[in-house]
Amino acid sequence: MLADQPPVTTKTDNDDLPFAQALTRARDLAESTICDALVGAEGDVADSMIYAVKGGKGLRAFLVIESARLFGIDRFVSRPAAGAIEAIHAYSLIHDDLPCMDDDDLRRGKPTVHRKWNEHIAVLAGDALQALAFELLGGMGRAELTLGLANAAGVRGMVGGQAMDIAAEGVATPLSLDEIMQLQAGKTGALIRWAASAGAVMAGEDPAPLESFGGKIGIAFQIADDILDVEGDAASLGKAVGKDAGAGKATFVSHLGLDGAKSRARELVTEACDALSSYGDKADCLKDAARFVISR
Amino acid sequence: MLADQPPVTTKTDNDDLPFAQALTRARDLAESTICDALVGAEGDVADSMIYAVKGGKGLRAFLVIESARLFGIDRFVSRPAAGAIEAIHAYSLIHDDLPCMDDDDLRRGKPTVHRKWNEHIAVLAGDALQALAFELLGGMGRAELTLGLANAAGVRGMVGGQAMDIAAEGVATPLSLDEIMQLQAGKTGALIRWAASAGAVMAGEDPAPLESFGGKIGIAFQIADDILDVEGDAASLGKAVGKDAGAGKATFVSHLGLDGAKSRARELVTEACDALSSYGDKADCLKDAARFVISR
Repeated sequence: MLADQPPVTTKTDNDDLPFAQALTRARDLAESTICDALVGAEGDVADSMIYAVKGGKGLRAFLVIESARLFGIDRFVSRPAAGAIEAIHAYSLIHDDLPCMDDDDLRRGKPTVHRKWNEHIAVLAGDALQALAFELLGGMGRAELTLGLANAAGVRGMVGGQAMDIAAEGVATPLSLDEIMQLQAGKTGALIRWAASAGAVMAGEDPAPLESFGGKIGIAFQIADDILDVEGDAASLGKAVGKDAGAGKATFVSHLGLDGAKSRARELVTEACDALSSYGDKADCLKDAARFVISR
Repeated sequence: MLADQPPVTTKTDNDDLPFAQALTRARDLAESTICDALVGAEGDVADSMIYAVKGGKGLRAFLVIESARLFGIDRFVSRPAAGAIEAIHAYSLIHDDLPCMDDDDLRRGKPTVHRKWNEHIAVLAGDALQALAFELLGGMGRAELTLGLANAAGVRGMVGGQAMDIAAEGVATPLSLDEIMQLQAGKTGALIRWAASAGAVMAGEDPAPLESFGGKIGIAFQIADDILDVEGDAASLGKAVGKDAGAGKATFVSHLGLDGAKSRARELVTEACDALSSYGDKADCLKDAARFVISR
C-alpha cells in the first residue's frame, strides 16, 4: 500500500526472527494457547470459538510477545496474555459481524460464525471467548493485566467505540475528524494499546512509551483500514470492502483524502517509532510492526 | 412456596441484619458498585447496563458479601466482587433474552433491554457488563478470583450450560435427569458456587465447604425455578411463566413430579446447611439464604 517505507529489519539473533516469521510465530502461539485451554470442551460453541480465532494476522499477540521480550520476558511466559488479547479480538469480530450489528457474511476469508452456525452460537461463542481471555489472564497472577484489558475491552474502550460507530449510522451529520479519532481510539485503539504495553506491565516497568507507541499505531492501523476499504479487494482481505464509502460513512479518507490519509499514517508510524527511542535496537521488531500496520 | 421450612433467623449483632434486610443491603451495594464504576460513561450502552443491573434480588451479591464476612472480611472490601457477580449475572440475562436465544420481552418486571432499546444495544451492554465484572475484580488484586469467575462464566460453566439448554430445544428425546443436572450446574450453578466460595478465596482459606454449599443451593435454586414456572404467575415473578411446560421441555418437575421436586429441593437445602457445620453460628445467614432460594 505504502511503498516508500524503509525495508523491514531482518534479525540474526538466536531468538530473533524476520518480522513476518515473528508475526506468524506469535499468532500460532496465541492460537495454540486458546486451543489448549479448550481441550475437552466439546460442541458447537467450543468449535466455533476455535474457528473464529484461526486465520487472523496475530498482530495483537505479536505486540504482547515482543513488548514482553523488550524486558527479557520469555514468550512462553507472556503466551497467556497473547492468547487473551486474540480471544478478545476474535470475540469482538464475531459480535460485530452479527446481523444486528454490521451484518457481515465474510471474515478472515471464511463465512462468519453466525453464517456457518447460527446467531445464538455466535452470541455464546463471543461471550465465552471474552470469559476465556480473563481466564488466561487470571492464570498469570497479575491483576493489573486483567484490570487494563477489562478497561480496554469495556464501555470506555472497545465496546464504547463500537457503540459510537453504530450510533453514527443513518445520522445526517457525518462524524467530525475528532469524533472519528475518539471512536477509533476505543473501537480498535484500546486493544492495540493494551497489547503494546502489556510487556511493561508484566515487567513492572513504566508503560508510558509503549502506550504512546500503541496509541499511534492504533490510529495508523485504522487509517490503513479505511484506505483498504477504498483500494482493497475482498478476495485478498477476506472481508467485504467499499462498505463505508457505499454507506456514505465518515472515515479518515473522507476527511483527509486518499493522499492525506496515507501521509498522516506515515507520520504516525514515524512518531510511534520515535516513542520507542529509549529502548534502542531492542525495539526494532516493534518498529517493524508499526510499518506493517500501514503496509498490509 | 414451601411452607414447612424453619423460620428465617433474625440476628441482633451490630453488623448483622435479618436475612431480608441483609439481602437488600447486598443487592444495593452491588448496584452502587456498578453505578460508581460507570460514572462518566454516557450513552445508551451505559444506560442499559444500569437498567439491566437494577431490580434483581441480589442473591449472588449476598453470597459474596456473607461468605466474606464468615472470614472477617468487611463488605466494603468484598464489594467489588459482589458488583462483579451481579454484572455477570445481568449480562447473562440480557443475552439470554435476545430474540436468537430465549426471545423474552419481560425481565425483572420490565421490558428486556432489546425491547426497550434494540438488539445491538443489548449485545453491547451484555459484552460491556462482562468486561466491567473483570475490571472490578482486577481492581481487587486477587487473580484467583478472576480465574474462578472466568471459568464459571465460560464455555465450561454458564455459557456451556446455556448452549446445552438451547441445543435441547426441538430435539425429540427430552434430556435425562443427569443431563439436566449437568446443564444446570453450568447455566445457573457455576456463578452461585463461585459467589458462595468467593469469601474463602479472598481469605486464602479452603473453599471446599462453601463450594459444596453453593453447588447444592444452585441445584435447589433451579428446581425452585422449575416449580415457579408451573405454579407462579408472571406479575409477581416479573418474567414469563409456563414456557418450559408449554414447550414440552424436560425439567426437574417433569422428571420428579411437583411433590418429588419440592422434596428434593428441601433435601438439598438441608445438605447445603450441613456442609457449613464447621463454621457454627457464623454461617446462619448463609443457611437463611439456602432456605430462601426454595421459598421465593
